[in-house]
Amino acid sequence: MEDINGPLLPNINYPTDLKQYKEQDLEQICKELRQYIIDVVSVNGGHFGASLGVVELTVALHYALNTPYDKLVWDVGHQAYGHKILTGRRPVFHTNRILNGISGFPKISESEYDTFGVGHSSTSISAALGMAVASHYKGETDRQHVAVIGDGAMTAGLAFEGLNHAGIENSNLLVILNDNCMSIDPNVGALKEYLTNITTSKSYNRFRDDISNVLIKLSELGPNAHKFVKKIEKSIKGTLLKQSNLFEALNFRYFGPVDGHDVVRLTQVIKDLKDIPGPKLLHCVTVKGKGFALAEKDQTKWHAPGLFDKITGEIKKSVPDKPQPPKYQDVFGHTLVELAEANKKIVGVTPAMPSGSSMNIMMKAMPTRAFDVGIAEQHAVTFSAGLATQGLVPFCTIYSSFMQRAYDQVIHDVAIQNLNVVFCLDRAGLAGADGATHHGAYDLAYMRSIPQMTVSAPMNEEELRNLMYTAQQENMGPFSIRYPRGNGVIVDWKRPLKVLEVGKGRKICDGEDVAILTIGHVGNFAVDACKELNSEGIHPAHYDLRFAKPLDQAMLHDVFKRYKYIVTVEDGCLQGGVGSAILEFMADHQYNAQVIRLGIPDEFIEHGEQAELWALCGYDTTAIINTIKKIAVSRTTKTMAS
Amino acid sequence: MEDINGPLLPNINYPTDLKQYKEQDLEQICKELRQYIIDVVSVNGGHFGASLGVVELTVALHYALNTPYDKLVWDVGHQAYGHKILTGRRPVFHTNRILNGISGFPKISESEYDTFGVGHSSTSISAALGMAVASHYKGETDRQHVAVIGDGAMTAGLAFEGLNHAGIENSNLLVILNDNCMSIDPNVGALKEYLTNITTSKSYNRFRDDISNVLIKLSELGPNAHKFVKKIEKSIKGTLLKQSNLFEALNFRYFGPVDGHDVVRLTQVIKDLKDIPGPKLLHCVTVKGKGFALAEKDQTKWHAPGLFDKITGEIKKSVPDKPQPPKYQDVFGHTLVELAEANKKIVGVTPAMPSGSSMNIMMKAMPTRAFDVGIAEQHAVTFSAGLATQGLVPFCTIYSSFMQRAYDQVIHDVAIQNLNVVFCLDRAGLAGADGATHHGAYDLAYMRSIPQMTVSAPMNEEELRNLMYTAQQENMGPFSIRYPRGNGVIVDWKRPLKVLEVGKGRKICDGEDVAILTIGHVGNFAVDACKELNSEGIHPAHYDLRFAKPLDQAMLHDVFKRYKYIVTVEDGCLQGGVGSAILEFMADHQYNAQVIRLGIPDEFIEHGEQAELWALCGYDTTAIINTIKKIAVSRTTKTMAS
Repeated sequence: MEDINGPLLPNINYPTDLKQYKEQDLEQICKELRQYIIDVVSVNGGHFGASLGVVELTVALHYALNTPYDKLVWDVGHQAYGHKILTGRRPVFHTNRILNGISGFPKISESEYDTFGVGHSSTSISAALGMAVASHYKGETDRQHVAVIGDGAMTAGLAFEGLNHAGIENSNLLVILNDNCMSIDPNVGALKEYLTNITTSKSYNRFRDDISNVLIKLSELGPNAHKFVKKIEKSIKGTLLKQSNLFEALNFRYFGPVDGHDVVRLTQVIKDLKDIPGPKLLHCVTVKGKGFALAEKDQTKWHAPGLFDKITGEIKKSVPDKPQPPKYQDVFGHTLVELAEANKKIVGVTPAMPSGSSMNIMMKAMPTRAFDVGIAEQHAVTFSAGLATQGLVPFCTIYSSFMQRAYDQVIHDVAIQNLNVVFCLDRAGLAGADGATHHGAYDLAYMRSIPQMTVSAPMNEEELRNLMYTAQQENMGPFSIRYPRGNGVIVDWKRPLKVLEVGKGRKICDGEDVAILTIGHVGNFAVDACKELNSEGIHPAHYDLRFAKPLDQAMLHDVFKRYKYIVTVEDGCLQGGVGSAILEFMADHQYNAQVIRLGIPDEFIEHGEQAELWALCGYDTTAIINTIKKIAVSRTTKTMAS
Repeated sequence: MEDINGPLLPNINYPTDLKQYKEQDLEQICKELRQYIIDVVSVNGGHFGASLGVVELTVALHYALNTPYDKLVWDVGHQAYGHKILTGRRPVFHTNRILNGISGFPKISESEYDTFGVGHSSTSISAALGMAVASHYKGETDRQHVAVIGDGAMTAGLAFEGLNHAGIENSNLLVILNDNCMSIDPNVGALKEYLTNITTSKSYNRFRDDISNVLIKLSELGPNAHKFVKKIEKSIKGTLLKQSNLFEALNFRYFGPVDGHDVVRLTQVIKDLKDIPGPKLLHCVTVKGKGFALAEKDQTKWHAPGLFDKITGEIKKSVPDKPQPPKYQDVFGHTLVELAEANKKIVGVTPAMPSGSSMNIMMKAMPTRAFDVGIAEQHAVTFSAGLATQGLVPFCTIYSSFMQRAYDQVIHDVAIQNLNVVFCLDRAGLAGADGATHHGAYDLAYMRSIPQMTVSAPMNEEELRNLMYTAQQENMGPFSIRYPRGNGVIVDWKRPLKVLEVGKGRKICDGEDVAILTIGHVGNFAVDACKELNSEGIHPAHYDLRFAKPLDQAMLHDVFKRYKYIVTVEDGCLQGGVGSAILEFMADHQYNAQVIRLGIPDEFIEHGEQAELWALCGYDTTAIINTIKKIAVSRTTKTMAS
């Protein structure tokens, strides 16, 4: 792997600089851009494979289009590093995903070139269509609107809804299907197979290409030619529908497949497509990880590999002195297999997150019992409901922030019917470097509003195992278990399983005057805080709620009878969260206490390391200590005053 | 219109009875079933056109299948009246949608023939696939799984997600596409146009039919023939892809279109399809309202016409003595046009609810500025976000319970980007006869968790107008306005518009000891309660919060300083709702008061009239009166004791 520095990239700060170069320079610029991404990500971390795969497409788009006047929407945004580097952010690209640095995703407030903030998948068609319709309405007929969307993201219903609407709006919309057969894991589903069929059927390709080329050339001849082209297309369609592919069925004009790594050809095609009105789709075949051999070979691993040696490709792992606690997701994955071995009713469901959620452990161990349904959270939940009606017990695992997309299905298809679906919400709470779009801030609030739903969160790995064990007992109904990104706290986590009583918390320690009520992993922050406070002679009690719903009424009666100061701690939003549930209990039972709620404040929290963000939001160990100390002071003052 | 009573239908209580008849009797049974639906719905109300349209399909399915062993999932469920009548519920069909009567939708707890509870659209494919996969896993190879879904419901992303997954599962799934070109309003979108193309292209039809017939006949010859059929199909596909239609692209075997009103043919086709393994789609063309001429002619009006004369077709309207207040939705519709006339930035977006939300008023007045995007709540929101990035102000109107389906888009695409999209949530609160699936119970809770979101609710028509006027001012950011199903309280509602201060409530009346805090329309219940109480010498104060977020801090400080008893009233869930927001304020500012929260309790509320349900849930006028009186008594007792 040669180290390529310059000579062209350093001169390119904005697309206007890019446009100074000739088409024959674009390949060199791609090489340098690719290498720059490798250089920075290898020492800085972040998403990797996706951006390498669209280097040529990125350069071609900014070369052929008139950004930012033309609107370019990147779906998900994992792939937008090249775009960021070419649009003013090369000098700050090393601050990517770092607290107060640039975001790992496109973001409106960061650059006028970022037309739409992303993070979750499959929004680009709808967003770009909105822009295109707005331009149409405003009479800006020369403005281009482009959505770049992967074949993985195309499986989500939102993308289909966008296509279905776009097909009847005569707006200037170009959808570029970045077909690399991958989500984070390999893409799945009928659509993927269909796309593979198209791209591997050579005669079909040639036929399509020939037609496309002829038509593009014809339409360059002027407005009359345009009409002629339309007529040809219509007559071809009318007679046999034989060219009708899935996208043409939805009234898009389909072009491709084209080689997504031929930057010159791409540039030409995009220029040509600018002149064709109405909804168009360009099918562009790329290789995720392109240009970094190991990343091409193991695309899931190199989606976001962490730090690595850019020469040898060795992924750098800090080797700890002693065994470390596992990731929560791995405890989930291994425990699920353990449970499924004993309970034949258990099946696993993941929407395109086998490796991210560790469902891949079950998919490997029990391939017929674990389902990757593609990027399709809504379907994942309703499909699980269907399974549950037949007596199976689906463990449906979805990141907390992605579960927002299936909220209706959780209510309508699972909870109303009181079905025993177990929702495992990974990445619950502040998720770290992915930022505002990925924080699982709302699930405790939105889940506890739902009748019949059990809402739980384990404080550690053992608790996670026991909650999972409990959730698959008979007649448990809808059961959600949320846990954070990252590692637990118990090295020897694989302990015997036991059933927990639903709605039963536990006392961690007795205390004086103040009780801390925690839910989930943040309970460990409170344990640490108590240790520290004890050493200073302050002795708060600590209770682990374990269940946000149903609440442990007996325990709370005890708490409110004994303590006048209550501090609640949750890794979730304060508006309507678990602290509010405690206030509801207090009001409903006419207790009086001073309740201080710690959690995520009423604002969107940006990216940074989890520990930084916990501190920023005021519920890490230090914040808990300070809160308790403040109470101690105010209490002393009051006592002295009285 | 002749009155057909019997002779066959009275003998049919269950599908087993139906099966006693010969195929040549099915037409007569359909006639009687259709008339029975007309008879009962005309005097009882309910959904109408959809069930008339699938009479033949319903009879054919129960005749050809072995229900309830075979699993039949009705999408949405508006069309399932015939199904209910044929599956044990003819005797109670007159209790349809009435409190304690049967549900207007299929419901698992009501009958073993109702395999999956519905109400919201587009769940059937995912649910039936879940059942089919479960059967496959359990080795029940003889079990059939059928999803009946309309072309309207097919536009929702969830349906596409289901198809995409089903296409790669080798499960026994039959999707019946009930193509009547309608949702509640006429269906829209590229898919609809595509389906119309198929059904109107006669040569294509004949070709498809011929192929289908040959293949079906061939596959009847036994397992070897099956293989042969597969081979033929593959070779046809392989050479030209010319038969590839949209569904075949997703790996479904496509059959049809067939006439959905030919019950004998339908029966035969369904029987034939039982023997064909894997995912299949039968395209069935029906007429919504079939057999009732007026309903065929004006399908939107006759979707759920209320009571009518079954002979003349005259829709019965109770004629009030004096002018009545308008429906909130109509105030919305007319006001939107009024605002849009003055502000060129305003556009309207509805996901398939032009008549239900009264967006049709703007669609008629300003056809280029109001968009029906099909049943696609997610897209409606992200599309609105796209429009808003370009400086337009979309009024995106969605029923409260359907907005659950776009929760992620509200957070991710609108709120994080702080875009000025105005969400008008119709049918917020208890919605009445549609029952648990349609109650807008959660929006106050789930909206107020979202940072940057303004959450408001008008107490009457004037307030609704003013909130809408306020929401489209410059830099308002995400703004939600929720209002209930049904009528307001002001006859002369069209009053001059004025800007309201965001986060500012209003005092309705001063009082003693107790303050009632209301949000939205239920404020009128409190007004009535206060009148009644005043006449008995009890004088509670009453404040209209108007905004659930931001709360009116100044007003609340005043309230908590002056009153020791606070009663909150909301037409929404108590878990995390506005009452909880008040508790949060109280805790954050260390006030002490006894707060009693009235609202929807933590259970799924069934169907009934709104007034019945408000009473049942304990927050109608009477309930408020009783609550205040109880406080008065307990206060007096305490005072006497002290």
